[in-house]
Amino acid sequence: MCEANAYLITDGGETLVMEAVDEVSPEKDGLKLVNIFGEQKFLRAAVHSLSLVDHKVFLRELAP
Amino acid sequence: MCEANAYLITDGGETLVMEAVDEVSPEKDGLKLVNIFGEQKFLRAAVHSLSLVDHKVFLRELAP
Repeated sequence: MCEANAYLITDGGETLVMEAVDEVSPEKDGLKLVNIFGEQKFLRAAVHSLSLVDHKVFLRELAP
Repeated sequence: MCEANAYLITDGGETLVMEAVDEVSPEKDGLKLVNIFGEQKFLRAAVHSLSLVDHKVFLRELAP
């Protein structure tokens, strides 16, 4: 399985926001994340970068 | 390995722009893609969505 962990980039570093993410899609003014267990999370964020071989998705917060 | 294929969303559908993508990172006014073979590509685009279990990264062109 090629899911990834999603991290939110913050001033202090990176915060894990969801494990085993499968789908990331735009929704309203942010992103919907869905993991392989069917759990969903909405974040006011955009994709910053990907490191797929390391199973990492980095997100950045959007300005309020 | 958990690389993915990158597709650019166009009016007509989806165009494969790079196979076996590992790293996607912001660069200037677009994205730099690097695949597992070390090949690089720059696109004036942003990440639209991800479908990681299907090994797919969807990109959208940025307005000129």
